Formats: sequence, C-alpha cells, structure tokens
Amino acid sequence: MNKLKYILVMMITMVIVTSCNENSNYIEATYFTMDSNGELIRPVDYRTWIYVGTPLTPNDMNNGKAAFPEFHNVYIDPISYKQYKKTGTWREGTILIKELVNVGSKAAVSGNGYFMGEFIGLEATIKSKEHFPDEPGNWAYFSFTNPTGGTLAATGKAFETAQCNSCHNSSAGDDFVFTQHYPVLRAAKGVGEEVTPENTAKR
Amino acid sequence: MNKLKYILVMMITMVIVTSCNENSNYIEATYFTMDSNGELIRPVDYRTWIYVGTPLTPNDMNNGKAAFPEFHNVYIDPISYKQYKKTGTWREGTILIKELVNVGSKAAVSGNGYFMGEFIGLEATIKSKEHFPDEPGNWAYFSFTNPTGGTLAATGKAFETAQCNSCHNSSAGDDFVFTQHYPVLRAAKGVGEEVTPENTAKR
Repeated sequence: MNKLKYILVMMITMVIVTSCNENSNYIEATYFTMDSNGELIRPVDYRTWIYVGTPLTPNDMNNGKAAFPEFHNVYIDPISYKQYKKTGTWREGTILIKELVNVGSKAAVSGNGYFMGEFIGLEATIKSKEHFPDEPGNWAYFSFTNPTGGTLAATGKAFETAQCNSCHNSSAGDDFVFTQHYPVLRAAKGVGEEVTPENTAKR
Repeated sequence: MNKLKYILVMMITMVIVTSCNENSNYIEATYFTMDSNGELIRPVDYRTWIYVGTPLTPNDMNNGKAAFPEFHNVYIDPISYKQYKKTGTWREGTILIKELVNVGSKAAVSGNGYFMGEFIGLEATIKSKEHFPDEPGNWAYFSFTNPTGGTLAATGKAFETAQCNSCHNSSAGDDFVFTQHYPVLRAAKGVGEEVTPENTAKR
C-alpha cells in the first residue's frame, strides 16, 4: 500500500513539475508562427504585449495624401522587450506589431486634437536570421490589412525588401526600428532588469 | 527507506503545489498600494500593463493653451482588463495610468504629424469603494508629475472631486472612463475570455 502511495505521489509530482517547467520554457519562446508556405500567421494576443509608441501622420497634415494616415499603435513581444532592457539589442525572433487605428474625432471636452477611432489594419515586422537570412538586418515586414476594410487576413506574405526595409534601413534609429518615435524603447535600452530608484522613472 | 522517500516526495510536492498556487492567488491582486497617509504610491511597472489608447490635444491646435498639451498614453492593469472582457464593467480596484509624453517632432520620413518626444509626467485613476467611498463612482485621481520637470513624486494625494471627477462624470463613455477614445477597451468590453475566430480581430 505504501508503495502504491509512493508511485502515485511520484506521478503527481512529475505532472506538476512538468507543468511548471513548461511555463519556464515558454520564457524563451518566440511570439510568432510561420505556416508551411513561409507566411506569417496573424498574431492575436499582441494587445497584451508591450506598447512602445504611436506615430501619427494624418491626411489633413499631408495634403490629403498621407502615406500612413492612421494612428500606428506599436507593440513589441514581452520577451524581446526584456532582452532589449538587458542587452540593448533586438534578439533573434523579435516581433513588433503595428496596429492601425483611424482618426475618430478631432474635438472633445479636453480640446481640439486627434482621437482614436476604429481598428482598420494590422502589420508586423520580425527579425530572424533563421527565417530571413537574405533581408537587410534579417528584418521582414508583413501586412494583414484588408484594403477594402473588414476581416483581417489569416496569414501575411513578407513584403519585397524595397517596400519597407529600405526606408527602415536608412532612417530608423536603432537597427531598423524607429526608436526615435518610441520613448518606451529609448528608456528601456540597456537599462537592466531590476527596478531601482534610478531607473524607475525611465521604465 | 521507502517511507523516507515517500515523506521526501510529499514535501517536494507540497513545495511545488504551494509555489503554483501563489501564482494563482496573484490573479486576484490589485496593482496599487496606498501609504499610511492615504496617498497612492507611484506605480512602476505599468509599461507592462495593457495599453488602451492615446488622446492628443496639442498646444498648436488649441491657441497655444491646451489644457492637456501632451500625448496621453493610457494603460489599464491586466486583471481589470481581463475582468472588463468578461463582465464589461470595472472591478473594485481597477487602476488606469496616464503617462504624459511631450510632442517631440512634427515631421519625419513618413510625413508631417505628431511624434512622441520625452516622458514628462504620470497620472493615475483608481476605482475603489473601499478607499474612496464618497467619490462619484468611487473613482479618485492622482498625479505624480513634477511641475518643474525632473523626478516624479514618490506618492500622490487624491485630487478634489471637482478637479477631475466632475468632467469624467459628465463626459466619459463608460463609468467615468473615456472609452470613446480607447479602441482597445471598446473592443474588449464583454467580449469574453477566449480567443475565437469571431472575436480575434477585436482583441
């Protein structure tokens, strides 16, 4: 009877240890999946990732023809954010999401300005030597936006290098990422992992 | 010897179960602490919370005298976000953070517009019947911003009701929160906890 109990307890322990270890292994995971055609499967949980900033170049400030007329809410996956704090560089497998939100209203009780309307698109960029060995900096760019509105695409094919990467290559602040527009990333770069009185305000 | 092994395994199991349970209990935690004077201790990890939106009412669109001239990056704590998805209401202990970022530049390679500069302030609002029984909706508002720039305050005292709460009371979209400016919250309200093909695009 004691032996049976022993075996049972061992089994329970192994289940629990395995369960806890799975969480630990997840720490090193990437936050994206490529399908068998080499297309990126649309990420879904990015609104729980780390927000880094929102550039805004509206139509009415660009003669009605802005290249990017929407609010661009940009997120980075949590593990790459943690690594960027630690090392100041983008790890293999870094993914940033750009969620497009149209300009909703231009006046509110708080004053005149720009206020977010509705979600109208989704884009992503990934740094991966494994997946994109020939792209400058190993960064590739994807869109899931439906040009006619409505449902986002389930997968996205990497853009040609000239469409996104060339501009990121020449103008982005830190290794193809426009950190000059993302205060959260500028504050995080190399700050370390611990919260201290010195870096708290920067986090 | 078998008995000794049995006891050892039982002890290990208990340690692991306790460790896993501690994580579960954390799920119900609040994300703020009041000090012994009833002031709010400045939260530090809010950039890992859930981003909900950025209203912008710059000086140059308000005759140089905007009431809120900065980008306002707004976050909600993760558990209150989860509860809002589930119930569509703000739980006891909900905290939202408003991080103030000045307008950095107004032109970039992507066009003319507004780009985030540097962090210049931090504010918070909390809904708590326990802590603020006499405030409308049980919401109280706090600022840690240093008016002369520089280091944020370590604690913040609740504003008088007329300073923040009266406007939130009359104009905010959902129980004192300006959800009309926060697409992430509008999409989340009552959507449930599971990711499904129907609500994925809304998350």
